[in-house]
Amino acid sequence: MQAEVGYRLHELVQRFGGTVRGDPDIVVTRVAPLDSAVPGDIAFLSRARHRAQLLLTGASAVILSAEDAGLTDLPAILCANPYLYFSHVSGLFHPRVSPVPGVHASAVVSESARISKTASIGPHCHIGEQVIVGDGVELEAGCVLGHNVVVGDDSALKANVSVYSGCRIGQRAMIHAGAVIGGDGFGFANDDGKWRKIPQIGTVIIGDDVEIGSGTTIDRGALKDTVIGDGVKIDNQVQIGHNVCIGAHTAMAGCVGVAGSAVIGSGCTVGGGAIILGHLSIADGVNISAGSLVSRSIAEPGTYTGVFPLMPNREWRHKAVCLNIWMR
Amino acid sequence: MQAEVGYRLHELVQRFGGTVRGDPDIVVTRVAPLDSAVPGDIAFLSRARHRAQLLLTGASAVILSAEDAGLTDLPAILCANPYLYFSHVSGLFHPRVSPVPGVHASAVVSESARISKTASIGPHCHIGEQVIVGDGVELEAGCVLGHNVVVGDDSALKANVSVYSGCRIGQRAMIHAGAVIGGDGFGFANDDGKWRKIPQIGTVIIGDDVEIGSGTTIDRGALKDTVIGDGVKIDNQVQIGHNVCIGAHTAMAGCVGVAGSAVIGSGCTVGGGAIILGHLSIADGVNISAGSLVSRSIAEPGTYTGVFPLMPNREWRHKAVCLNIWMR
Amino acid sequence: MQAEVGYRLHELVQRFGGTVRGDPDIVVTRVAPLDSAVPGDIAFLSRARHRAQLLLTGASAVILSAEDAGLTDLPAILCANPYLYFSHVSGLFHPRVSPVPGVHASAVVSESARISKTASIGPHCHIGEQVIVGDGVELEAGCVLGHNVVVGDDSALKANVSVYSGCRIGQRAMIHAGAVIGGDGFGFANDDGKWRKIPQIGTVIIGDDVEIGSGTTIDRGALKDTVIGDGVKIDNQVQIGHNVCIGAHTAMAGCVGVAGSAVIGSGCTVGGGAIILGHLSIADGVNISAGSLVSRSIAEPGTYTGVFPLMPNREWRHKAVCLNIWMR
Repeated sequence: MQAEVGYRLHELVQRFGGTVRGDPDIVVTRVAPLDSAVPGDIAFLSRARHRAQLLLTGASAVILSAEDAGLTDLPAILCANPYLYFSHVSGLFHPRVSPVPGVHASAVVSESARISKTASIGPHCHIGEQVIVGDGVELEAGCVLGHNVVVGDDSALKANVSVYSGCRIGQRAMIHAGAVIGGDGFGFANDDGKWRKIPQIGTVIIGDDVEIGSGTTIDRGALKDTVIGDGVKIDNQVQIGHNVCIGAHTAMAGCVGVAGSAVIGSGCTVGGGAIILGHLSIADGVNISAGSLVSRSIAEPGTYTGVFPLMPNREWRHKAVCLNIWMR
Repeated sequence: MQAEVGYRLHELVQRFGGTVRGDPDIVVTRVAPLDSAVPGDIAFLSRARHRAQLLLTGASAVILSAEDAGLTDLPAILCANPYLYFSHVSGLFHPRVSPVPGVHASAVVSESARISKTASIGPHCHIGEQVIVGDGVELEAGCVLGHNVVVGDDSALKANVSVYSGCRIGQRAMIHAGAVIGGDGFGFANDDGKWRKIPQIGTVIIGDDVEIGSGTTIDRGALKDTVIGDGVKIDNQVQIGHNVCIGAHTAMAGCVGVAGSAVIGSGCTVGGGAIILGHLSIADGVNISAGSLVSRSIAEPGTYTGVFPLMPNREWRHKAVCLNIWMR
Repeated sequence: MQAEVGYRLHELVQRFGGTVRGDPDIVVTRVAPLDSAVPGDIAFLSRARHRAQLLLTGASAVILSAEDAGLTDLPAILCANPYLYFSHVSGLFHPRVSPVPGVHASAVVSESARISKTASIGPHCHIGEQVIVGDGVELEAGCVLGHNVVVGDDSALKANVSVYSGCRIGQRAMIHAGAVIGGDGFGFANDDGKWRKIPQIGTVIIGDDVEIGSGTTIDRGALKDTVIGDGVKIDNQVQIGHNVCIGAHTAMAGCVGVAGSAVIGSGCTVGGGAIILGHLSIADGVNISAGSLVSRSIAEPGTYTGVFPLMPNREWRHKAVCLNIWMR
C-alpha cells in the first residue's frame, strides 16, 4: 500500500513549512506510528500520552511541536500542528490514484447518460437516464445511479453505493461502500390508525469535498431538498433524515442519527451514536458529545452532553431504583 | 419530478372531501411548502409554528383546518386533517409509476423461478430457485433474492436489496436500497468460552403495505419466523432481531434496534435510536421516546421515556460526578 | 428448510454425551421450540420461564438439565447445558451445505486472482487483482473484493458484501449481506476549520471462525491494521472504527459502535446499541450493558452499565427538570 518514494526532510519543509532540526538530508520513505516505525520511516507526536514511545521509536525522523522538541534527539520537523503536518506528508506518500478511464463491459449505462471520457465505471454498475458523470470520477463495482443523478469531477463512489434519481453530488466527494443517497424520507400521515405515505419529491444536494462513510444513508427531501454543505465529513452508518441541512465543514462520527428537518450549523462536531431530533436547529460551532440525545434547539456554540455515566452494574441498579422513586 | 397536471380545487374536494373557501375553479399543478410555493402551487398548514408563513406564501391555494381558516384570505380547502389531506393531493400529483415490465438481459434468474409478466427485474439482479415474483413488482438493479423467496404484487425493491432464502414479502411493500431481509439471527451457545452457532432455520414473513428503509436489516427467526405485520413502517438503519413480532401499523424511526424475540404490539411508535431489549413484550398503542432503552415489558399504552437530558458539558460533568457518588 | 433425516435418542447421546431418560429408540427428525413442536420433533428447555410449555408440548422428546428432569414424563436427554446441547443437535440436522464449485459466467475476476477450484463465486461478483480465495469459500451474488484481499478456507460471504483492498479474512468466517470490510477510517486533521484527510493505509485482519452481521462496517486502520480476533461474533449494523482490536471470542450485539483505536479484551460481551469511545482499553471478560456509553477504560472484569431508566413520560419530564436544576 505504501509508495516507495523517498523525500529528504528539507524537501518536506520546502513543501509544507516548519523547520528541520538535525540532518536535513535524512531520507524518509514511509509514514508510520511511533511504536512500530523502522529506519526509513517518519512518525509524529501529537498526543501527550504517546511521549514515552519517542524514546523507543525506530523512526528516522519525527514531526514534533516546538514545545516537544526537547523530548528526543532524533532528526525532526518542528511545526505548529504535528497531526496536520503529518496529514500533508502522508498525503504526499499516498496520493489519490487516478482511475483507469473507461466503462466496464458489464456496466449498464443509459444512452442518454453523459459520462466523461476520463471517468471510470466499474463492473456491474447501472447508470440511469440523463445522468451526468464528471471528469476523473470513479464508480467501483455494483454502484447504481438513478435517473438525472449528477456526480461532480474527481468524486469516488466505492462498491455497491446506491444513489436515487435526481440527487446531485459535488466535486471530490468520497462515498464509501454500501452508502445510500436519496432514499425516501420517513413521511406518513396518520389516517385513522393507518399510515398514508407522503410522496418524497425533494432530492439530496451534496456539496464539494464531502466524505460519506460506509453504510451511511441520506434521505431525499419531502418537498424541498436535503442539503449537505461543502467539506462535511460523515462517518459510517450515519442516518440523515429528509429535509436536513448540514452546514459546511461539520463532522459527524459513526452511528449518528439526524431526524427530519433538523438544521445543523457549520463547523459543528457530533460524537458517535448521538441522536438529533427533528425540526430543531443547532448553531454554528456546536459540539455534541457521543451518545447524547439532542431534544431541543441549541443557539449558542459550546459543548453539550446528555449521557448517563457508566458504572458497575450493581451500583447502577441501586441508582436506577433511586431515580425511579426519587421525588415522586 | 413534478407532474404537470392541473386540478381545480372543486375537483380535489370531489375526490378527497373537505370544502372549498374562495374560487373553486382555481387550478393547482404542484404541491409545495408554504415558504417556497409559487403561483400554481397548493400548500398546507399543519403545524402552528408555520402560521407566519401563511402571510408571505406565494401559493395559489392552501389546505387548512377549519380553526385556521381565518388566518389567510387565500383560496383554501378546509378539512379536518390538513396533513392527511395533503398526502392525498400529493399522491394524486405523484402517482406510483408502473415499471416497464420485463427481465433485464444482465439479470440472472433461475429457471424454476416464476416471474410475473408484468414485473420488472433490473440489471444485475440475481433470483434463486423457486422464487415467486408477483404482478407489477419492481426490482431495481443489484437485488438478490435467495431460493424460495416470495414477493407479493406491486411491491418495489430498490437498488442492492438482499433477501435471503425462504423469506416472504407481502403486497405493495416498498423496500429501500441496501436493506437486508433474512440474515441469520444472532444465536450462539457458549461452549466453555467459545461461541457455537445455532442454525437459524426460521424465515421472515412481511405483511402487506409495509415500508422498510435504506440499510435496515431484519433477521430470520431461529426456529420460528420473524413477523412484520401489515402496514408497519420502518425507517432507515433499523435492526430487527430474530423471532421479533411487530404488530400492524406500528412505526419505527431511524436507528432503532429491536433485540431477539421481542413482541411489539400494533399501533405503536418507536422514536429514533431507541433500543428494545429481547424477550419482552410491548402492548398495543405504546409510544417509546427517541433514544430510550426499553429494558422491561410494557403492559399499558402510553408514552415511555428514558433519556439523560442534554445540558452544557460543564454542568453535565458536575452532575455525572454527583450521580456517581450519590447515595453510595 | 429442515432435513428429513431421523436420529434415535441413543444415537444423539453417542455423539454428544448426556443420558437418555425413557425409550432410547425414539426417532426425532426435526428441532422445534416447545410451544410449536409436533410428534417427531425434539425440543429443549433452557429458560425457567418456558417450563409451563413442557406440559403442553407436542414434542417426541426434550433436552433437559438434570434438575428439570422431574418436570415432564416425556422421553428426554439429560445434560449439563441444554441450550448448548440443542446447538449440537440442530447443527446435526442442519449441516452447512457445501456450495457448488465454480465461477459464475457473469462474475468479473482478475486474471491475477487465485480462486480455489472448490470455491463458489456467485453472479455479478467482482474480484480484484492478486486476490486469494480459499477452498470451499462461497461468495454470493454481488460481492466485491478489492485488490489483494484474502479469504480463508470455508468462509462464506453473503449477497452484496464489499471488501476493500488488502483486507484478510480467516477461515470459516460468515459475513452477512451488505457488510463492508475495510472502508476508510474517519481520520481528518483540522486545518483552520476545514478537515484534511489522513490517508488510511492500514487494513483489516479478521481471524478464524468470525461471524459478522448484515450491514456491519469495519474500517481499515489508519497506519496499523484493525484486528478482529478468532471466534469473535458481531451482530448486525455494528460499526468498528479504525485501529480497533477485538480480542478472541468477544460477542457484540446489534447497533454497537466502537470508535477508533479502542482495544477490547477477549471473552467480552457488548449489549445492543452500546457505544465505546476511542483510544480506551477494556479488559478481558467485561460485559457492557445494552445502550451504555463507555467513556473510560475498564481494567476489571465485571458488568458495567450506564442507562437512564425507562419510565412513563410524565414522570420522566419531572425528573429531567429536577436533574437539570439539581445542585446548580
